[in-house]
Amino acid sequence: MKQKARIIEALSGIVGREQVLTEKEDVLPFGFDGTAALKKAAECVVFPGTVEEAAAVVRFCSENDLAMVTRGSGTGLSGGSLPVEEGIIICLLRLNEILEVDADNLTLLAECGVITQKIAEAASAEGLFYPPDPGSMKISTIGGNVAENSGGLRGLKYGVTRNYVMGMEVILPDGTVTFLGNKCVKDVAGFSMKDVFIGSEGTLGLITKVLLRLVPPPPARQTMLAMYPRMEDAATTVSEIISRKIIPCTLEFLDQVTIQCIEDYAKIGLPTDAGAILLMESDGPLSVVEAEALEMADIARKNGAREVRVAKSVEEANELAAARRTAFSALARVRPTTILEDATVPRSELTKIVTFIQEIGKKYQLRIGTFGHMGDGNLHPTFLTDEKNHEEMEKVEKAMKEIFTFAISLGGTITGEHGVGVAKKNFLPQQYGAEGIKLFKTFKAAIDPKGLLNPGKLVDVERKSRSA
Amino acid sequence: MKQKARIIEALSGIVGREQVLTEKEDVLPFGFDGTAALKKAAECVVFPGTVEEAAAVVRFCSENDLAMVTRGSGTGLSGGSLPVEEGIIICLLRLNEILEVDADNLTLLAECGVITQKIAEAASAEGLFYPPDPGSMKISTIGGNVAENSGGLRGLKYGVTRNYVMGMEVILPDGTVTFLGNKCVKDVAGFSMKDVFIGSEGTLGLITKVLLRLVPPPPARQTMLAMYPRMEDAATTVSEIISRKIIPCTLEFLDQVTIQCIEDYAKIGLPTDAGAILLMESDGPLSVVEAEALEMADIARKNGAREVRVAKSVEEANELAAARRTAFSALARVRPTTILEDATVPRSELTKIVTFIQEIGKKYQLRIGTFGHMGDGNLHPTFLTDEKNHEEMEKVEKAMKEIFTFAISLGGTITGEHGVGVAKKNFLPQQYGAEGIKLFKTFKAAIDPKGLLNPGKLVDVERKSRSA
Repeated sequence: MKQKARIIEALSGIVGREQVLTEKEDVLPFGFDGTAALKKAAECVVFPGTVEEAAAVVRFCSENDLAMVTRGSGTGLSGGSLPVEEGIIICLLRLNEILEVDADNLTLLAECGVITQKIAEAASAEGLFYPPDPGSMKISTIGGNVAENSGGLRGLKYGVTRNYVMGMEVILPDGTVTFLGNKCVKDVAGFSMKDVFIGSEGTLGLITKVLLRLVPPPPARQTMLAMYPRMEDAATTVSEIISRKIIPCTLEFLDQVTIQCIEDYAKIGLPTDAGAILLMESDGPLSVVEAEALEMADIARKNGAREVRVAKSVEEANELAAARRTAFSALARVRPTTILEDATVPRSELTKIVTFIQEIGKKYQLRIGTFGHMGDGNLHPTFLTDEKNHEEMEKVEKAMKEIFTFAISLGGTITGEHGVGVAKKNFLPQQYGAEGIKLFKTFKAAIDPKGLLNPGKLVDVERKSRSA
Repeated sequence: MKQKARIIEALSGIVGREQVLTEKEDVLPFGFDGTAALKKAAECVVFPGTVEEAAAVVRFCSENDLAMVTRGSGTGLSGGSLPVEEGIIICLLRLNEILEVDADNLTLLAECGVITQKIAEAASAEGLFYPPDPGSMKISTIGGNVAENSGGLRGLKYGVTRNYVMGMEVILPDGTVTFLGNKCVKDVAGFSMKDVFIGSEGTLGLITKVLLRLVPPPPARQTMLAMYPRMEDAATTVSEIISRKIIPCTLEFLDQVTIQCIEDYAKIGLPTDAGAILLMESDGPLSVVEAEALEMADIARKNGAREVRVAKSVEEANELAAARRTAFSALARVRPTTILEDATVPRSELTKIVTFIQEIGKKYQLRIGTFGHMGDGNLHPTFLTDEKNHEEMEKVEKAMKEIFTFAISLGGTITGEHGVGVAKKNFLPQQYGAEGIKLFKTFKAAIDPKGLLNPGKLVDVERKSRSA
């Protein structure tokens, strides 16, 4: 970084010297996020303690053509918070207050650095419910969730983070602070800019406060595991449930590789000879839940499930769900590098994509464990590999490319919930075409004309420095 | 319009001479929309028969610096489809095919010119449900609904048009055709540009196809009317229902002026001495509906309702709902000009705003009938006036300004569902501040650099012609 000493001095003047990290061992943890096989050394990490400090940092960077990467807990899965050349990391974990739970309007206002789990707990303490539950929710921040438009296990019925964002405070690339949205459940005044900041992966501005919509909690819940000899039958079950017009809370999938890894790791009594397992959860009023659960169990059996295990208590329900929640950790132990993908397809195409992923694994002789949000058409084919094995990594790249191409050909997307970041940037043109990419670039260049916000992520835009 | 003959010839070459209207009596109906006291003579109206023709028209206009106003049935309530200087009207009513109902994925693909009612019927024919039901749905087009992000009577539980748009085909200002979105229920690839086109009021591009999400229909429904001596008690009932964590399908409101006008007009047996009526509708599984309806009736009575009329049949339910659906027509007969507003507030502020509107009516000696989507905090104070009476119109302007200012001070918005257009453009800065307006303008200028798409609507952006 050019003029590093001057930059550190200026940033220290804003946030205090102790809130600026530059020593190699201090900045080490900021050189990667939750994405496998991606890292880059950070040079300088700044921790603003207030929105005003954060805005002052942004203004300084803007005036000095310094790139900015915003970061919370760094649990992202597409490399969105990886450091960039000639740039600083702005870590917003100190902005961590829940500012208001408004039970009359069913809203919650929080600073961006609040851990998602705390949001759910604060809602629950008021007898309300914040549905989005990304896998990382115990450590990820709500600001990061909004910037990535995070999903979770309840997306099928409840939607994703986007569906719960009513407003946000943002710091624009020039340091301007503005609030987009409000507590009104209906508002059509002006362009819905907040909607394009949701999922913008830190490329448009810093999200510093979030106004969330809460909902009444479901009074009852029923959890089931359906065990299948054949994977395709699980996919067919999901398609039939949806086309029978049942929209349950959760329809999650584990394939044989994943089941075996979970059982090796957690020993929770899953049948390791099963070809697939579906975790099905219904929630709502008790009578509705009971009827829906019965019907889903019937559909599962009719489609070849050899056993449907129904939880008899909340504890047992949590145990069944734990099988699914453990999937990634269990797969991650097997080989040195675990590459988690999230190609997504329309739900009618599920059987085709799960079969295709299996074939690809055979073709390239790769170990792929697949699990995920089958009810959303959002699967996580997970490559168990080793980044040091270049030959195998090349095969992984080819396999991924084939899976993305196939998903797109089915009307799908390269990412259902993990984002584009750097990991999938090269695949985006295939999905959106030249017109779509041009539109993205035009938009990005308009909001961030100097190209200083998370450059090189999502889309490439020319970085214009004054010296250029 | 400069070079009118040349323009007509060129447009006729694209769509055929008979699809270009220029005679004064032919273009007369295109000089206004559903907004009172706003009109402007159209000079030329073009009716493309295909997306390709529409794109060719846009390309021609772009190359010739000709402004474009897109229009469907022209039922808008903020002047969004009013003609503009040196511009043509592109009417998309000929793009009126429902292209697909996909029962496996619960989606519907339609051209923009399909009437909203037909969308609802096509969904229903497949045993599915398209919830948004704007008041104009029997004549408005789905493209117009998306461009305005239309609301309706079911917004409380089901949300607005935005919540049902999965994708759209758009023609950008240079004539490029692109599709934003897909049938995936989760997709985070790239900026969510479709979300900012929703509600963009024709200022960013032409929406030519819409991919809609359908949902399973509710198996049961219960409709009730609660009659109140005092208006404030209806507002308090709504606030209490929400804070008791009940989210019914519909909570609609009629004030005394509106009740009297409806009864004069339709003679359906409403108590004309009532201070307010609430239309309450619960839908979902039968047992849930029954319990919810009972609880809502209790809350209504506890808060001062002197009578709660419960529909005993579908026919009776439709009759009760008709009282609300008739409101605007009933009010519109009373005086020559009916100005319908839609200031919206957080639901906790309902009592304050209804009281304020009453006071404003007294202060300016204006007749205001208020009805609307009380459960959404979205009221329609309706001024019964006469645009030829300049003195009275000045008072209406002042009264509207006071209502908007008060709504904003309560954390509300100047428009919950009607849009900004020309009618509310001058009030937008008050809600969004200089930073917000600058962001809107930057965005608009990036997507439409020549400023040719619906200029002068929503925000002012410099119109750059080659000759300038």
